[in-house]
Amino acid sequence: MESSDLYPVTRLAAAQEATAAAGLDALLLTPGPDLRYVTGYEALPLERLTCLVLPAEGEAFLVVPRLELPAAEHSPASRLGIEFVPWDETDDPYAAVAARLGRAGGSVGRVGLADRMWAMQSLRFRAALPGAEQVLAGTVLRDLRMRKSQAEVAALREAGAAIDAVHAQVPGFLRAGRTEREVGRDIADAIIAAGHSTVDFVIVGSGHNGASPHHELSDRIIQPGEPVVVDIGGQMPSGYCSDSTRVYCVGEPPAGFVKYYEVLQRAQEAACEAVRPGVSCEAVDAAAREVIAAEGYGDYFIHRTGHGIGLETHEEPYIVAGNTEPLAPGFAFSVEPGIYLPGAHGARIEDILVCTEDGGERVNHRPRELVVV
Amino acid sequence: MESSDLYPVTRLAAAQEATAAAGLDALLLTPGPDLRYVTGYEALPLERLTCLVLPAEGEAFLVVPRLELPAAEHSPASRLGIEFVPWDETDDPYAAVAARLGRAGGSVGRVGLADRMWAMQSLRFRAALPGAEQVLAGTVLRDLRMRKSQAEVAALREAGAAIDAVHAQVPGFLRAGRTEREVGRDIADAIIAAGHSTVDFVIVGSGHNGASPHHELSDRIIQPGEPVVVDIGGQMPSGYCSDSTRVYCVGEPPAGFVKYYEVLQRAQEAACEAVRPGVSCEAVDAAAREVIAAEGYGDYFIHRTGHGIGLETHEEPYIVAGNTEPLAPGFAFSVEPGIYLPGAHGARIEDILVCTEDGGERVNHRPRELVVV
Repeated sequence: MESSDLYPVTRLAAAQEATAAAGLDALLLTPGPDLRYVTGYEALPLERLTCLVLPAEGEAFLVVPRLELPAAEHSPASRLGIEFVPWDETDDPYAAVAARLGRAGGSVGRVGLADRMWAMQSLRFRAALPGAEQVLAGTVLRDLRMRKSQAEVAALREAGAAIDAVHAQVPGFLRAGRTEREVGRDIADAIIAAGHSTVDFVIVGSGHNGASPHHELSDRIIQPGEPVVVDIGGQMPSGYCSDSTRVYCVGEPPAGFVKYYEVLQRAQEAACEAVRPGVSCEAVDAAAREVIAAEGYGDYFIHRTGHGIGLETHEEPYIVAGNTEPLAPGFAFSVEPGIYLPGAHGARIEDILVCTEDGGERVNHRPRELVVV
Repeated sequence: MESSDLYPVTRLAAAQEATAAAGLDALLLTPGPDLRYVTGYEALPLERLTCLVLPAEGEAFLVVPRLELPAAEHSPASRLGIEFVPWDETDDPYAAVAARLGRAGGSVGRVGLADRMWAMQSLRFRAALPGAEQVLAGTVLRDLRMRKSQAEVAALREAGAAIDAVHAQVPGFLRAGRTEREVGRDIADAIIAAGHSTVDFVIVGSGHNGASPHHELSDRIIQPGEPVVVDIGGQMPSGYCSDSTRVYCVGEPPAGFVKYYEVLQRAQEAACEAVRPGVSCEAVDAAAREVIAAEGYGDYFIHRTGHGIGLETHEEPYIVAGNTEPLAPGFAFSVEPGIYLPGAHGARIEDILVCTEDGGERVNHRPRELVVV
């Protein structure tokens, strides 16, 4: 079964071992990517507490609102052989966690919170476990989550193929006279039709909007001769995410644009070529940045080169200056340098790569040349 | 402008006044409903820090990744006359917040965190402001957010009309032989077509799945004579949410079902009739519960009667035993009792109500009788 490969039952033991090795007494994982990674359970993020309690020693258990018990029982978490502890509407589930943790083995010194745990929950845990130091579960789980398994890499390839299929349709959506929003609506439909379960973001940056990297959609009408940055992604039923950027031009591109687009393409290629085990994240960033800076566009590349990707669109490792983490096989991340001329236009080329034993494998395969439509 | 009514610029001052009155030194609002409520800015939830810093005294400011600056400048937050403090990829925005807060007026004793602030952010703020006690911003904002303005009530009416329009189409989607997932897909499309910007949830609980209140969708094939619980909602472009449940039966319903459905309808009516200023939340819960218990179904009503709604589908006030909060004009919440017979079927009837000067106004108007399709 693909899902059991993606979320193997052995992962709980691996996470427990890492928890003990990090000197934490327990992980507290509320709904989100950390919980899904460890258990396979895609729990709803709700104000009612759902929490996997994974002590460094002893048995893990899942605290779950009684309403969510059927969902939990039908999830991959049911394969883990852990106790489900349902709570009723007027119970205090935080006190229940504290009581069980205390019973298991004396005082609780340090707990690791799911990186996305809401403050409404972390502050309740602080009150219920007043002696416990709170740290991020990510400090324990990051090494596991960064090294994608073969099944995870396969899921990222599947996500890559799905978003590639959307990019293949974009020339049919783009034409002068349409608004970014109209084009974005077609793209969102295509993202779902290509097999994603959710649309995470749709950026259609035409003309000067292309110079704002996180511009999304507007009612701006696309004009003839304008470059359009299209950066799109979604989450697959597997839980794994896609993210890819290509640049299109509606008619013949401006001369200045063609000049820096060629530089950008070389920069993206250089960063992809730099990927191999042992190379630091910041070195990959520098590989792109040096090409762009050498051509005089350094001030127009205003963001990091990339971000890790997996169950989250943005996760570790970040491909950014200052991150000396060495790449290792299984690390998956975007390589997406950009050049942005405020008030004029911009460009970004983005692929997801997986670090292999001796290089990097791209999971996106659409042509990287400027596409004139 | 509707949007300026929904997110009036005066709200920042009201939040600041409440912050001072609560004895907090500042609110720290990361992307989510608290930030949107105070500023109108629908910021993306990202690992990069965006944070409104609202001191009890002095000027508020918005810390924002430079990439997001154009989005912030195009958002309603630009009308507030506050400083935007952009940060670059290798800066430490938490240190920047701490330095500015310190500069503004001595030590920082207590800060209120957005209720949904991620642990990866709250723990960074803990390190950057080591002397500050962290509490929830909700302790300050809840009184403001619970009392919906006329513009907010209008937005909830609009959301109610939109989801009513979807329920009007459900009989056309439901028939024996289709799976819950197929019906759910049609409903999701209809939610968007009715004007929502996102689908928040689609529950189609047929037969015994109807007995699990938070069941979502499955590949179960709907059978003749089965009741189907349809609980659906989404978020409108305004930011305000819809949520309504109706029960349909594909052909003639089972006799036992008809009996308790009639009880449920009376219970939902009784709870709606109980709504008026000064009545406690738990009294509304009790009004529904008493009808159901008197008929012997008390053990089958396994959840609270309702939840507040606004910028979040679930927010305060919760209509639950133990909540002695008195209702006040402008409070908006669901009234959704249910009866669930495990292994057989279930039912729930849900409307959103707004507490008025002398009662409750429903924003959902679809017939509450069992709909036989």
